[in-house]
Amino acid sequence: MAHGAEFDAIRDLLAEWGPLASGIGDDAAVLDVPTGERVVISTDASIEEVHFRRAWLTAEEIGARAAAAALSDLAAMASVPRGLLLSLGVPESWRTSLTQIARGVGRVAASVECPIVGGNVSSADALSLTFTVVGSALSPMRRRGAKSGDIIFVTGTFGGPGAALGALMEGRTPADAHRRRFAAPAPRIAEARWLSEQRAVAGIDISDGLRGDAEHLARASEVSLVLNGSSAPRVAGVTAAEALASGEEYELLVAFRPDELPDRSEFERRFGLPLTAIGVAVPAGDDPVVITDVGVEPGGGFDHLRR
Amino acid sequence: MAHGAEFDAIRDLLAEWGPLASGIGDDAAVLDVPTGERVVISTDASIEEVHFRRAWLTAEEIGARAAAAALSDLAAMASVPRGLLLSLGVPESWRTSLTQIARGVGRVAASVECPIVGGNVSSADALSLTFTVVGSALSPMRRRGAKSGDIIFVTGTFGGPGAALGALMEGRTPADAHRRRFAAPAPRIAEARWLSEQRAVAGIDISDGLRGDAEHLARASEVSLVLNGSSAPRVAGVTAAEALASGEEYELLVAFRPDELPDRSEFERRFGLPLTAIGVAVPAGDDPVVITDVGVEPGGGFDHLRR
Repeated sequence: MAHGAEFDAIRDLLAEWGPLASGIGDDAAVLDVPTGERVVISTDASIEEVHFRRAWLTAEEIGARAAAAALSDLAAMASVPRGLLLSLGVPESWRTSLTQIARGVGRVAASVECPIVGGNVSSADALSLTFTVVGSALSPMRRRGAKSGDIIFVTGTFGGPGAALGALMEGRTPADAHRRRFAAPAPRIAEARWLSEQRAVAGIDISDGLRGDAEHLARASEVSLVLNGSSAPRVAGVTAAEALASGEEYELLVAFRPDELPDRSEFERRFGLPLTAIGVAVPAGDDPVVITDVGVEPGGGFDHLRR
Repeated sequence: MAHGAEFDAIRDLLAEWGPLASGIGDDAAVLDVPTGERVVISTDASIEEVHFRRAWLTAEEIGARAAAAALSDLAAMASVPRGLLLSLGVPESWRTSLTQIARGVGRVAASVECPIVGGNVSSADALSLTFTVVGSALSPMRRRGAKSGDIIFVTGTFGGPGAALGALMEGRTPADAHRRRFAAPAPRIAEARWLSEQRAVAGIDISDGLRGDAEHLARASEVSLVLNGSSAPRVAGVTAAEALASGEEYELLVAFRPDELPDRSEFERRFGLPLTAIGVAVPAGDDPVVITDVGVEPGGGFDHLRR
């Protein structure tokens, strides 16, 4: 893209974002975080043909989904978003869709009150959206921190993105409920803050799949997790094993001390989402994650943990 | 790139960076900035065939140059680097060069004491390096802040990158001195901090060319700049007009009040670089930048400003 065309593209983006885009015009953005809070920062790329295909999503969905995926990393750290920066690689064939992409980004950023503070636009062979998200927290939630005896919870309902992706890869039309979870994930920012305030001791967002991210938390915390594979709520039409493998859920997996469990009905009332106990941390064994009872109906395990 | 290959690539990068890479392993990096300082953040992409060609540079130079370009935005804001994140798009044909790219990134990051705190790796059709750089400053330098009567200075010696790029585009071998300035720019972090401490009132780094970036500063400050086009030091073999147009210099252009000029010999002693008065700010006119006396030898203008 010629230099002038880049400026035109940036002008289109800023017009779409309006007051949501702030402080743009210097070589860098300037942000303030409350005194005593730590800065939390992550970068995340969505690339056409690697992370999504054009035929699967509208331009607005592509923007929204990529923004949600990036902001989910701030949720994983129980941080308040302070700003995002977007580096766009734009092929000529996408140029006219830029405003819709920006609309999707803006909608998700606005939903978590995250100003858009910078970015850049380059020409490219494939559409790419590289987000940097900046947040802050007094005490960011970490993957490490779970101890043997802790109870493991997840937010939300699993399996939709995996089922939708499976259908799309096979050229089938995904079920509406599955497609919605795939195309319009929500970063669980407010949920994570609440869970952290309720003394969650470790957490992660579920991007690689419940099982895979449980492994990440287990390794960082130097424990093993025993999970009841069928106790995580799941969308209609998926098996427990599919729900455990489904990636890009952007739900949260968190650990609580057994004597400081969160009030799940309060969580559900506040956020309209289930919060479900799915397992327990045990001393580190050969396998970081052990799945038990696949096939048992949700609620069949860990019922003694409900309160 | 398959998930496992991405992990392998990340392992190679971390092995190359050693202790320079810190705090990696959570969903986001956690940084602290000194109490009272503001967070300064910028994102910058270098894409093969857009910003560079493979034949022009070694892999290590590609990494170093892209890192320097990104960190230069922190220099432009007179900020102390606190961390950088690198999002890499890596085609299969570049996979074996990743360690050398990382070496170049690491060398430049270490030169300004900037830890590498996060990033990600994706497969891609073209090599791309998207950096996010985070710094802090009590009072970040801005493009705005120059007033009529201010004296405009630049660091360094101009024209090298433009001459090298011109030669490369025409298939010629650039002169060594030109190529060095093109392939191995240095972010002027320490220089910018010193200039800011000496009461520079506005500043910008020179990525689009001295003339172009002077325009950016003039517009942001709502003044016009009258520049003596031949007074900026330049490398052998380039004209004053070529020096004004040469981009990717990553030198600094700063404004000082006429009664608070910096000690240029002290600057040159500290940094081994010239600091040169090249013009003056005047009330905003039709043209944000007016070039005078192109063709006059360096030092021919603004001599009355020297001290």
